[in-house]
Amino acid sequence: MSERAIGIVMNGVTGRMGTNQHLVRSLLAVRAQGGLRARDGSVIVPEPVLVGRDERKLKALAAEHGLRAWTTDLDAALSDKANQVYFDSQVTSLRPAAILKAIAAGKAIYTEKPTATTLDEALGLCRAAKAAGIKNGVVQDKLWLPGLRKLKYLIDTGFFGRILSVRGEFGYWVFDGFSQPAQRPSWNYRAEEGGGIILDMFCHWQYVISNLFGTIRSVSALGATHLPKRVDEKGMPYDCTAEDSAYGTFELEGGVVCQFNSSWDVRVRRDDLFTMQVDGTRGSAVAGLRECRIQGEAMTPKPVWNPDLDSPIDYFADWAKVPTRQTFDNAFKAQWELFLLHLVQDDPFPWTLETGARGVQLAELALRSWKERRWIDIPDLGL
Amino acid sequence: MSERAIGIVMNGVTGRMGTNQHLVRSLLAVRAQGGLRARDGSVIVPEPVLVGRDERKLKALAAEHGLRAWTTDLDAALSDKANQVYFDSQVTSLRPAAILKAIAAGKAIYTEKPTATTLDEALGLCRAAKAAGIKNGVVQDKLWLPGLRKLKYLIDTGFFGRILSVRGEFGYWVFDGFSQPAQRPSWNYRAEEGGGIILDMFCHWQYVISNLFGTIRSVSALGATHLPKRVDEKGMPYDCTAEDSAYGTFELEGGVVCQFNSSWDVRVRRDDLFTMQVDGTRGSAVAGLRECRIQGEAMTPKPVWNPDLDSPIDYFADWAKVPTRQTFDNAFKAQWELFLLHLVQDDPFPWTLETGARGVQLAELALRSWKERRWIDIPDLGL
Amino acid sequence: MSERAIGIVMNGVTGRMGTNQHLVRSLLAVRAQGGLRARDGSVIVPEPVLVGRDERKLKALAAEHGLRAWTTDLDAALSDKANQVYFDSQVTSLRPAAILKAIAAGKAIYTEKPTATTLDEALGLCRAAKAAGIKNGVVQDKLWLPGLRKLKYLIDTGFFGRILSVRGEFGYWVFDGFSQPAQRPSWNYRAEEGGGIILDMFCHWQYVISNLFGTIRSVSALGATHLPKRVDEKGMPYDCTAEDSAYGTFELEGGVVCQFNSSWDVRVRRDDLFTMQVDGTRGSAVAGLRECRIQGEAMTPKPVWNPDLDSPIDYFADWAKVPTRQTFDNAFKAQWELFLLHLVQDDPFPWTLETGARGVQLAELALRSWKERRWIDIPDLGL
Amino acid sequence: MSERAIGIVMNGVTGRMGTNQHLVRSLLAVRAQGGLRARDGSVIVPEPVLVGRDERKLKALAAEHGLRAWTTDLDAALSDKANQVYFDSQVTSLRPAAILKAIAAGKAIYTEKPTATTLDEALGLCRAAKAAGIKNGVVQDKLWLPGLRKLKYLIDTGFFGRILSVRGEFGYWVFDGFSQPAQRPSWNYRAEEGGGIILDMFCHWQYVISNLFGTIRSVSALGATHLPKRVDEKGMPYDCTAEDSAYGTFELEGGVVCQFNSSWDVRVRRDDLFTMQVDGTRGSAVAGLRECRIQGEAMTPKPVWNPDLDSPIDYFADWAKVPTRQTFDNAFKAQWELFLLHLVQDDPFPWTLETGARGVQLAELALRSWKERRWIDIPDLGL
Repeated sequence: MSERAIGIVMNGVTGRMGTNQHLVRSLLAVRAQGGLRARDGSVIVPEPVLVGRDERKLKALAAEHGLRAWTTDLDAALSDKANQVYFDSQVTSLRPAAILKAIAAGKAIYTEKPTATTLDEALGLCRAAKAAGIKNGVVQDKLWLPGLRKLKYLIDTGFFGRILSVRGEFGYWVFDGFSQPAQRPSWNYRAEEGGGIILDMFCHWQYVISNLFGTIRSVSALGATHLPKRVDEKGMPYDCTAEDSAYGTFELEGGVVCQFNSSWDVRVRRDDLFTMQVDGTRGSAVAGLRECRIQGEAMTPKPVWNPDLDSPIDYFADWAKVPTRQTFDNAFKAQWELFLLHLVQDDPFPWTLETGARGVQLAELALRSWKERRWIDIPDLGL
Repeated sequence: MSERAIGIVMNGVTGRMGTNQHLVRSLLAVRAQGGLRARDGSVIVPEPVLVGRDERKLKALAAEHGLRAWTTDLDAALSDKANQVYFDSQVTSLRPAAILKAIAAGKAIYTEKPTATTLDEALGLCRAAKAAGIKNGVVQDKLWLPGLRKLKYLIDTGFFGRILSVRGEFGYWVFDGFSQPAQRPSWNYRAEEGGGIILDMFCHWQYVISNLFGTIRSVSALGATHLPKRVDEKGMPYDCTAEDSAYGTFELEGGVVCQFNSSWDVRVRRDDLFTMQVDGTRGSAVAGLRECRIQGEAMTPKPVWNPDLDSPIDYFADWAKVPTRQTFDNAFKAQWELFLLHLVQDDPFPWTLETGARGVQLAELALRSWKERRWIDIPDLGL
Repeated sequence: MSERAIGIVMNGVTGRMGTNQHLVRSLLAVRAQGGLRARDGSVIVPEPVLVGRDERKLKALAAEHGLRAWTTDLDAALSDKANQVYFDSQVTSLRPAAILKAIAAGKAIYTEKPTATTLDEALGLCRAAKAAGIKNGVVQDKLWLPGLRKLKYLIDTGFFGRILSVRGEFGYWVFDGFSQPAQRPSWNYRAEEGGGIILDMFCHWQYVISNLFGTIRSVSALGATHLPKRVDEKGMPYDCTAEDSAYGTFELEGGVVCQFNSSWDVRVRRDDLFTMQVDGTRGSAVAGLRECRIQGEAMTPKPVWNPDLDSPIDYFADWAKVPTRQTFDNAFKAQWELFLLHLVQDDPFPWTLETGARGVQLAELALRSWKERRWIDIPDLGL
Repeated sequence: MSERAIGIVMNGVTGRMGTNQHLVRSLLAVRAQGGLRARDGSVIVPEPVLVGRDERKLKALAAEHGLRAWTTDLDAALSDKANQVYFDSQVTSLRPAAILKAIAAGKAIYTEKPTATTLDEALGLCRAAKAAGIKNGVVQDKLWLPGLRKLKYLIDTGFFGRILSVRGEFGYWVFDGFSQPAQRPSWNYRAEEGGGIILDMFCHWQYVISNLFGTIRSVSALGATHLPKRVDEKGMPYDCTAEDSAYGTFELEGGVVCQFNSSWDVRVRRDDLFTMQVDGTRGSAVAGLRECRIQGEAMTPKPVWNPDLDSPIDYFADWAKVPTRQTFDNAFKAQWELFLLHLVQDDPFPWTLETGARGVQLAELALRSWKERRWIDIPDLGL
């Protein structure tokens, strides 16, 4: 078996997501399973090159995982021909410049979302990639969550009949840090540091909705900073300047309505931290991260409104779980493998910088909708 | 013990709601329990006078319940001095004219909602009632649902700390009539007959929200007719011209956000046909029609986002039911009794034609928000 | 990263508690995790020096854990400058003399409770430590039990409203050894060997109550030797001369009443081997060793006394578990780490020989209350 | 079958207990079952004569149950030879004078507890009854609770081996009336109206303990008014002047220790509103109002104290319910029947005014123990 080593410059991988999801559970996991088999029988072996600004952290991370390739010199890493891919999981504000540099060096690009903090920058990346003719991709991990894969299966097999509407509920209670340490970083709640739930989550909603249910035509959104004061990592109270909750409604081509609430101030009484209820003429489903529950037409009860009596129907009982009929790999790893196959043998990979730009666009227009207090139509990217 | 007989003209009481809720479970139930005790020791005994257009139905209804007073002649009923109250549960389009007539006859008014199909008409009723100096009230039954009473208790006792947001989900699957007869009347789905879920439900949301959470400052709403064709009571397919679903967001004085979905095209995976989740700094609750579940600060789990594992937390388990610590009477009867006590001994009764007009106003502005695709502020009624 | 090795003379560590809790799960666990990080970035590494009277046991224990430092010569160990801390888990009767010797050698003191068998001796230790100006601490492990940490959280966040009363139940059935070997050592049941449940447990109740609920003002206690004969480790029956059960009531400053039963003759029908039920105006909790269950005001049922019917209320159902929202380390290790940080960087450490003396005082006054059959007020220590 | 009609003067029977337990569920139930069969084959038929001060209430109560005999003239009722029994369920303060009058009239006496508010008065009743040679009895209903009958069975059949100790927990959360109406009358919380949990409950504990476990030798008690303000039946706040909680310990002949907590300020996490845990050498039991759970020697687990792990033992699981192997009649009715048989055919009836006086004595000495802060021995009644 011939091996194809593919050097991958991983910039910003010392962060929590970069380390856990991209390095350990994706690329190192691919290595641990003996690489990835290509159609021609060869085996693709990713060779991570850790890049960052903190030498101590890089060294420790490399040591922990038995890696020798790490550097604080991005230019040097990019000038090495063995490195074919540039991966970026830095903070968003540093991302566009680094990607442009990598494009200039002729590297294929794979990057975390949001690809940029403004649509203009995101489009700049698309144009540069196109001009350079390089392959590119953006992380859209939620598409490979087991619960959403099961939902996709239902859509593809016609379970729903015609889909009418989708309700999304994302979020949980993030402690404010006064009595109980918060479980999310404080920058999430500071606009000046790129925080805010709209920029964070609407990028996800864009690809989730458009991949599963169709093109988004227009958006109406309302943000709110429900908790105005929180305590940071050092125990200091601070003012929250970014919205911590967002109430969004989306109209799709064809008339499907998607209503998505995103909040870090909500206690969870539902199947999972993120759920989508899809209602169709022939059936409905509620998908969570890993499970998906369905109620087909034949299982649908016929309730009578009578508040004088306890309901004779248990509204949770008339649903059935979609069984797990395949192994679902880690969502990040699944997309990494598709990207590597795209790189090596041109398999289709539609999750490009252009789709990444659409995520940034949706977040930007949602913020504008909130400010202007009206529906905003989504224009073409004009690429 | 002295008895006070109060004649009550019940117009339109042959309909389902009029018969079941207002006649049988309210006024006849008050009679069955021996009347209603006033502060002075006297006993109030309602004497229903059935009024309608269909002599056959009236006669049958009266016979079934051993009542002798029924007539198709509204004017005659209104001219009888023994009849102190006029109650209206006709279709909305007929309501304003009949109420004006009763006001002119000096009767106290008690009526179903919506009080009119337009705000102008609704305001006309308020002005006429005021000018005539008569007592008046509008049915706002949901306030007396056991689940909402428990929720009110939580609010009053400070359970929530500061309330941040409210999510309402109303609705269920109304069959379209093709394979399975529909369980709601077809006029609900025809705009030309006063149908549409916005006019129906936003009247409720107005008083529910303003009584429990505060004054509504502005509204954004989107309607949709997800099912364009249904089959009517006679088995004939028809075009649905009224919206069957509405996605509404409300901003309250003080910053609370209420996001309410109303739909007849949704399958129910939640605690009840109508639920409200209230999130506050110190606790959350999910109220249904009869039960209310809570999660206080000390019960709030601290979830970690890890879709690679099944959640170690059962998100339904960390909630507790508010125990039933009192007997809850039928919601309609509860409000009827308060109205009778208001009539007889001037007890406070804030649920007047003016609050009814606010319900019509909210529905009207929600429809306008939908049409103009923007947020609409709620102005004063200008009375 | 600089390392700070801290020699710790561990006297009496061959006993069960000394070995398991202090050596293995505390100090060796700190070593296994790479030491303890101080504020200045240095790493504190405890170096245990095992001291005891039985050379064979010491040698075996050292060998089992790969330790080289052990000796039967306490004086030699104390004269070594590298040993900064003296830790004592000998039998109580030997403790005061050894601690005084360690104080004289200028060591910081950390010791098991009871610090002495009489208040006079315990106060002598306090005075000697104060005169020598050395740091000191007493094991009060129950404060770091997960169940009590959760209870503390409830207190700190105001869950209870005003606390009214506390009921403690400690104990389990200790077999008498006739049919089934006893699961506790026989000296516990012999007064002449320092046995008795009052001296053992009231030291705990002192710091548990005063740390969680407030200063103890007075005590009333009754002891009983319910089982007069038991069988010892060698299979020989013996007379029990120490009380095996104690019924204590405590009045606190501010009026809270604590009623604690301690018994080795009770079969357990409750959540855990030790439970405390705390009742407050706004809610109640029952804490065990690891869990804590709560019933807030809104969850409190309203029972009706009707013994003719089975209770419609399941009195265990209306309670919710406080979720585990943080990792709880071994209770002994948690306190050891605080002591080491106190030693190295002067972090507050209020659990001193003085608080240890208060534990001995409470046990002594409880015994006097029992003898004199009356309430005894708790005087100042007079230090 | 010959009938023996026995006229029973029921004084104070319009109260809740008098009506429900003594009239309806006891005497009327005996009548409804066709009377009570005596040994000689005759049938005893109680003939209630309702006596009270409120003519309207008496009349209504008599009418409701089809009784003709009622009067506000106690003397007249007592002078009627057909009335052989005087029963008293008035408020305690009125009781002694009425009973003395009935004794003077030669009636047999049956009365609710407490028989008087002071021991002197209670002894006066005993002496008067003795001098007059009349039969007499005091309600001690708890002895006939199904749960306590099952416990008695266990005692009688030697289940426990030697009994060591008893823990009693009585009480529940009585709402203070501010947010939620109280479920007990306000006089319970006012000393000046005969309130206080010690007088109420210690009468019960006296007969429960002495009937089941042996003679009480001494008592130590502490009362507390945990909630100082409550709202009365008319919605008015008032100061609580009587204790609402009592912590009592009792020593019995033979060394059994009984520790009983009684409280109206405790939330219930136990099997029932009143439970007694009995521990004996061979087994333990927890009795509630209707059930009794046991753990025999062979079922007793051997727990290990290790708070680092969740307990491997579920401490509720190793218990078994005593099955219901007989029908248990209402507790009040059961005692009434025994009293009637005592009256008619001299069956033993040890629950006399003398035992009633012992209940009053225990309450009185408990109050003195609280005041003097010491154990009080229980002297002979000196009758």
